[in-house]
Amino acid sequence: MMATNGKDASGVKDGVSSNHSSEEFAKSNGEARETPAPSKRQNGVAERPQRFTFSSEPTVEDIRRMQAEFTDERDWNQFHQPRNLLLAMVGEVGEVAELFQWRGEVAEGLPDWTESEREQLAHELSDVMIYLVELAEKCRVDLPQAVLRKMALNRLKYPASKVHGSAKKYTEYKD
Amino acid sequence: MMATNGKDASGVKDGVSSNHSSEEFAKSNGEARETPAPSKRQNGVAERPQRFTFSSEPTVEDIRRMQAEFTDERDWNQFHQPRNLLLAMVGEVGEVAELFQWRGEVAEGLPDWTESEREQLAHELSDVMIYLVELAEKCRVDLPQAVLRKMALNRLKYPASKVHGSAKKYTEYKD
Repeated sequence: MMATNGKDASGVKDGVSSNHSSEEFAKSNGEARETPAPSKRQNGVAERPQRFTFSSEPTVEDIRRMQAEFTDERDWNQFHQPRNLLLAMVGEVGEVAELFQWRGEVAEGLPDWTESEREQLAHELSDVMIYLVELAEKCRVDLPQAVLRKMALNRLKYPASKVHGSAKKYTEYKD
Repeated sequence: MMATNGKDASGVKDGVSSNHSSEEFAKSNGEARETPAPSKRQNGVAERPQRFTFSSEPTVEDIRRMQAEFTDERDWNQFHQPRNLLLAMVGEVGEVAELFQWRGEVAEGLPDWTESEREQLAHELSDVMIYLVELAEKCRVDLPQAVLRKMALNRLKYPASKVHGSAKKYTEYKD
């Protein structure tokens, strides 16, 4: 919404590839979807349940830019040093943990949770994301590309052929 | 890389908007950039330092899809219940914290850190991101859209006109 009024953000948006406002994102993307996966019953393989997907926007960079605008407009960069942001993220992770404590195991999709509990979880996961993104920015880590590099490493450490169905740590595998 | 060999991923990619592989992302995006902001010296306003930005890809949804493929290929969904993923994320946040401990304050951009320390940080921040995304997926939270909603709430809780330059919590402000 800040991006639509053009106020205070002029120095921030320059050179950033996406100029969508958060309102545009919300309009153009709608709700998350359950994507139908093809049935494999014909081949005798068990049918795969429908797969949940995220909206394509906002991107990680969109989130970085919007949070940077939010921080700039409030003159809050003076408080947002890396260690403060890290502690803020730790605090938000704690708030996520609070929502899961004393419950016993929770099934995928949170079938027993109320709508209000789900929305609270969405808020707390978002807070973790926002601080994670701002921490990466302030540390000059290109988070989307760093994730690609880490995923490539994970595939090398855990080859599918070797680790299938096992929860062992990579140091426990033998060649 | 998994997406390029076409193996095992056929049931996962259907219906997902982006079909880029991680190799394509890496090639098309390159490194993060320092975006030049316009000088305001002519107006007597202090010049703003160059702003760091992220690559535009992979998106949050791309990360969700790649991690889902990684987990599927290893038959690891049996271990990836919400509370296990939450604990995994907590562990990774701890690894980020370890990199910052005993250092005293750290300036934006981490000027005193070695390249190796920076890459280690990039790995650990990525691990937090990967588990955060998978936790949100398994909880059926559309994380990108949830972030938009939370940012809208944050702007209501902290109006720029009221909180400029102050670190008070929103409950401490008076109307």
